[in-house]
Amino acid sequence: MRLSISKEELQGRQKKFFKKLKENHIDGAVLFSVTDIFYLTGFHFHPTERPMGFIVDPQEKTHLFVPALEHEHAEEFAVIDFVHSYPEYPGVRHPMEYFKDVMHESGLQGKVIAYDSNGYGSPMGYRGPKLSDLLDAKDFVSVYGWVEEMRFIKSEAEIELIKESCRWGNLAHRLLAKYTKPGLSEIEITSRATTEATMMMVETLGPDYKPHGSPANAFFRGQIGEMAAFPHAVTQNIVFKKGDLFVTQAAADVWGYKSELERTMFVQEVTPEQEKYFTYMYNAQQLAFNTIKPGIPYSKVEETIQAYWKEEGIQHLTRHHTGHNIGLLGHEAPFFDLGDHTMIQPGMVVTVEPGLYVQGVGGFRHSDTVLITEDGIELLTYYPRDLESLITD
Amino acid sequence: MRLSISKEELQGRQKKFFKKLKENHIDGAVLFSVTDIFYLTGFHFHPTERPMGFIVDPQEKTHLFVPALEHEHAEEFAVIDFVHSYPEYPGVRHPMEYFKDVMHESGLQGKVIAYDSNGYGSPMGYRGPKLSDLLDAKDFVSVYGWVEEMRFIKSEAEIELIKESCRWGNLAHRLLAKYTKPGLSEIEITSRATTEATMMMVETLGPDYKPHGSPANAFFRGQIGEMAAFPHAVTQNIVFKKGDLFVTQAAADVWGYKSELERTMFVQEVTPEQEKYFTYMYNAQQLAFNTIKPGIPYSKVEETIQAYWKEEGIQHLTRHHTGHNIGLLGHEAPFFDLGDHTMIQPGMVVTVEPGLYVQGVGGFRHSDTVLITEDGIELLTYYPRDLESLITD
Repeated sequence: MRLSISKEELQGRQKKFFKKLKENHIDGAVLFSVTDIFYLTGFHFHPTERPMGFIVDPQEKTHLFVPALEHEHAEEFAVIDFVHSYPEYPGVRHPMEYFKDVMHESGLQGKVIAYDSNGYGSPMGYRGPKLSDLLDAKDFVSVYGWVEEMRFIKSEAEIELIKESCRWGNLAHRLLAKYTKPGLSEIEITSRATTEATMMMVETLGPDYKPHGSPANAFFRGQIGEMAAFPHAVTQNIVFKKGDLFVTQAAADVWGYKSELERTMFVQEVTPEQEKYFTYMYNAQQLAFNTIKPGIPYSKVEETIQAYWKEEGIQHLTRHHTGHNIGLLGHEAPFFDLGDHTMIQPGMVVTVEPGLYVQGVGGFRHSDTVLITEDGIELLTYYPRDLESLITD
Repeated sequence: MRLSISKEELQGRQKKFFKKLKENHIDGAVLFSVTDIFYLTGFHFHPTERPMGFIVDPQEKTHLFVPALEHEHAEEFAVIDFVHSYPEYPGVRHPMEYFKDVMHESGLQGKVIAYDSNGYGSPMGYRGPKLSDLLDAKDFVSVYGWVEEMRFIKSEAEIELIKESCRWGNLAHRLLAKYTKPGLSEIEITSRATTEATMMMVETLGPDYKPHGSPANAFFRGQIGEMAAFPHAVTQNIVFKKGDLFVTQAAADVWGYKSELERTMFVQEVTPEQEKYFTYMYNAQQLAFNTIKPGIPYSKVEETIQAYWKEEGIQHLTRHHTGHNIGLLGHEAPFFDLGDHTMIQPGMVVTVEPGLYVQGVGGFRHSDTVLITEDGIELLTYYPRDLESLITD
């Protein structure tokens, strides 16, 4: 299988973006979003304090603006017409002054220009001017979210990469479950499972495999024992003991594409109370699977799940909505949320993860990565979901 | 040793921030920067599409605003007076409407209010209003960079955490060098060295060790063989061969604090041409070590290095400046750059990493983490820098 998105598909994305600009009477565009630039050009880089930008000029030529240290890298890997660079940030002359030159030379002056953000931003010590102070445009139009919306529906090639991610996340998760034993710490189990799964992934896929994030990995995020009731805990380096409830997470980056697999598990034994909440959660996830289909809004799924929680009298134990899109980022819009009325469409890839959090008992959440098909869903993650499979030996 | 920053030190940081607000006749503040919020409160979390914010009210009480799924987590771990939360993003009522309520209840209306950013931002599908549209303040003052500037000079406790990071980065790097052999791939060597160093780190430090990022790790970032001349390449899953030049990177997260150790190395053999450029780079780094001291501007260091490159006629082979501060982020201001005239002061921690990039020959860059002392520097990284030590067996 192909382990990347083809040049032709990247060019097709660019054309689609050009078309939308034209339909909206926009002459050119400037984008700063790292993820959107990657989506349109295939150029994967480490964003830092050094500004980077993507330009579409009025002739529909594309330009990448990068620091000198990325120039050759961009020429080699980006699907782009022109690469421009500046010496360094902060520099004697500010990088955005060079960017101004590039915008002028590209004919952006006096035109209607789209931007996703009115300037570059980075927490790594960056300071810089607004885009609108650098360019004398006829008009500026915010297109924040446009490329993100193009990313809502995945192509066949994207779905294949996400499936590959699921496959290796599944192996990492199997190993994580196998190595979780009383007396071992969170980090050592994580490291062992992650490394072994990564080794197998690299052996199997060979040198064509280019990760843009972590290869196969599985971890706990600190949701272990008493900490399991914190839905978004962080690594705590906790030592496991018999009877601990824990929540896992596993995935693998495949050319920038992600997936999500999470399971609520138990070290050797389960209490009847834990089993009760596990069953509520299990049923809620099943209900979500049965509900999700094209042609209904995302909010409808959340309404259905919340109705179930209310019916069971446990709505006070929830802390988050049912899920979200996933792809180049771990969380992407739209969301299975009461306030999100986007219509579900075939080709969207979502996580389904209703959760319950009971102080003193545990956190209960499975997460699966699911493709929206013409008439329902296809589960891309396939790790067992039933209680018995989720109790360690 | 203590593996975290004490509650007292965190409170001291808050007091220092309050004092600066007062000196500038500011009544209250709203911060959204993840790193700055962590610096002031010790609360480590996964930033997502769900907005979070930190408020200082006119009574100098602190408030953390989080999604419901972080509420208990924040109450348990943050050094904060009050935790407020909202159900979910996007929600039926937008989270920032709840934030508006909190700002009103905290007495921010009609006051002079500082902010680091005019609203929350996230690439993960977030949309939301500007802060200035939510609050009827007497005046808004941007304090973007204020907390970052507080972070310029490290405390003794911070320096200890960075030293601990260096220690484990050094082990990971030793193992990386040991396992780098012809026929093995970038990812498998990285995984093995990282896992073994992580295991030793966790065994040694025990359950008090709480990483807020990757534990001990070492990697190549794709700078291997032909790819070594790209200064900021990304993982390529390259298979090593005899004679490859490569550039490493190693570190370990210790309670959010980072360090940086990079070495230019060779698989078994070096060409005379490679040795020539290696020596230029080695000398430049040594020159930087000899130049850096308190009381001179950051730019002076860069000027000295650039003068050396020019003297040798190799300035066209450079692609970036000599280094930057480091701490909670891998890159922090100030920079050893011609355009950065910040004065060097004791307690600052910097990377020193002049580099040369020669297409067809390789990339040449060591990076060391260095503490500014009263009269010069102390190298916190201590891996051998000489050529002979950097040729693998």
